[in-house]
Amino acid sequence: MRLATVDHETGRTAAVLHEGAWHALPAADLSAFLATTPPERATALAGEALRDAVPVLPLPAPGKVICCGLNYADHIRETGRELPAHPTLFAKYADTLTGPEADLLLPPDLQVDWEAELAVVVGATLRHADREAALAGIAGYTAANDISVRDWQYRTLQWFQGKAWDASTPVGPVVVTPDEMDPAAGVEVICRVNGEEVQHDTTRTLVFDAADLLAYISAFTVLRPGDLVLTGTPGGIGAARDPQRFLADGDVVETEIPGIGTLRNTVRSAR
Amino acid sequence: MRLATVDHETGRTAAVLHEGAWHALPAADLSAFLATTPPERATALAGEALRDAVPVLPLPAPGKVICCGLNYADHIRETGRELPAHPTLFAKYADTLTGPEADLLLPPDLQVDWEAELAVVVGATLRHADREAALAGIAGYTAANDISVRDWQYRTLQWFQGKAWDASTPVGPVVVTPDEMDPAAGVEVICRVNGEEVQHDTTRTLVFDAADLLAYISAFTVLRPGDLVLTGTPGGIGAARDPQRFLADGDVVETEIPGIGTLRNTVRSAR
Repeated sequence: MRLATVDHETGRTAAVLHEGAWHALPAADLSAFLATTPPERATALAGEALRDAVPVLPLPAPGKVICCGLNYADHIRETGRELPAHPTLFAKYADTLTGPEADLLLPPDLQVDWEAELAVVVGATLRHADREAALAGIAGYTAANDISVRDWQYRTLQWFQGKAWDASTPVGPVVVTPDEMDPAAGVEVICRVNGEEVQHDTTRTLVFDAADLLAYISAFTVLRPGDLVLTGTPGGIGAARDPQRFLADGDVVETEIPGIGTLRNTVRSAR
Repeated sequence: MRLATVDHETGRTAAVLHEGAWHALPAADLSAFLATTPPERATALAGEALRDAVPVLPLPAPGKVICCGLNYADHIRETGRELPAHPTLFAKYADTLTGPEADLLLPPDLQVDWEAELAVVVGATLRHADREAALAGIAGYTAANDISVRDWQYRTLQWFQGKAWDASTPVGPVVVTPDEMDPAAGVEVICRVNGEEVQHDTTRTLVFDAADLLAYISAFTVLRPGDLVLTGTPGGIGAARDPQRFLADGDVVETEIPGIGTLRNTVRSAR
């Protein structure tokens, strides 16, 4: 099953894909839908087929967006670190997110870098969850790019200020439910810049998988339906290249996860 | 002016202190009040005097809770670091906060530490704010204790997982408006554990003051009315003592800022 928030001829709504067409769900967006309804009820609740439906940011109002850094064995090696015993976690806010085709408006002269990631959408209230409960509490998977402002990320010890620029993390285009996607078996995560492939890995090499991350986070804070957990990025980031490469005005970043779709975002310099 | 969220004889409400009594404001809590109303209108909107009013967590629903680490010259020295060029920032969520008299329920055997702090309450929408706009956008000041789980904080490079335990950061008891309090001129920040003073400093020694922090943060993300910015803790934390000292079941942490009041929280071990 594919869930999304879509813009259509007469408005915006949560929606489910059925026989090739988006059908309205009874909620303003997918955040609102998941807050009240288990995702498996979507098919039964599907309403009219929508005209000219285009997926937008699927989850506009997550209470939490928690990200894991250093989670692919090869990306960990490119940063010169050893495999970790615990996931490295940092936070974003709902304001950090943006849509699958949105321009990324950022001031010029920043070291803007790409980080294609598989994102986990929480589908249940999780606190002190074990792996089994965490796995059962996954609503689905989507794509994200944890666009990072490296110079701000490394101004201090804490990455947050390089990771939480408003409308800098594209997410979408759709949420695929776990019955159709198993990242433990391997899901490809691909990033292209102006058509050139810069990242390409599979989630089989994740040190901490989706259920690990949800269970670990739930030891200290509650996760609720519609919250997002980003699983980390594979090797190939611009900051780790020699010479380093950063995004500039007009660069097009594509984040592809086969089975989910492609985010296509253009960097726009704006003061 | 003193603003709060109070529990009273018949419910919970935003409130303003007037002639020694809490008077109801037309909002369910101070988060809801600030979301719609400039704080300076509180006196004009004050309703009936409330019976048995007791301040609770003043801001139950901030969209953002952003914290500055390493901001007092003496605390920076005790961690062995140099004075920073940029504020070290990390994030909490609304779930991290708890009330001024709440028990702090945490699993046993964690390295739980205190960090008394002055917190800034945002009163306007701030984005790309300069110092002047940031200063004008401060609704008031309150007290907070950035209770930190040191072993989790230092499991990885990112502090977030030691700083975002649910209901671990007491805030309150009241919000004092800037016409009655000027941290730049010096506000005392005091922490006591079981009656023993463990931190005592003045905000005159802050490297980045309230306006600096709001302006800096607003360069990358919007701040909205009711958001909280914690300004960092002075020297005297338990982890920097020799031997180190952490909080255990039954320990009482008092966080006092004269002019604002005292948070009094008891640590309770709970699985």
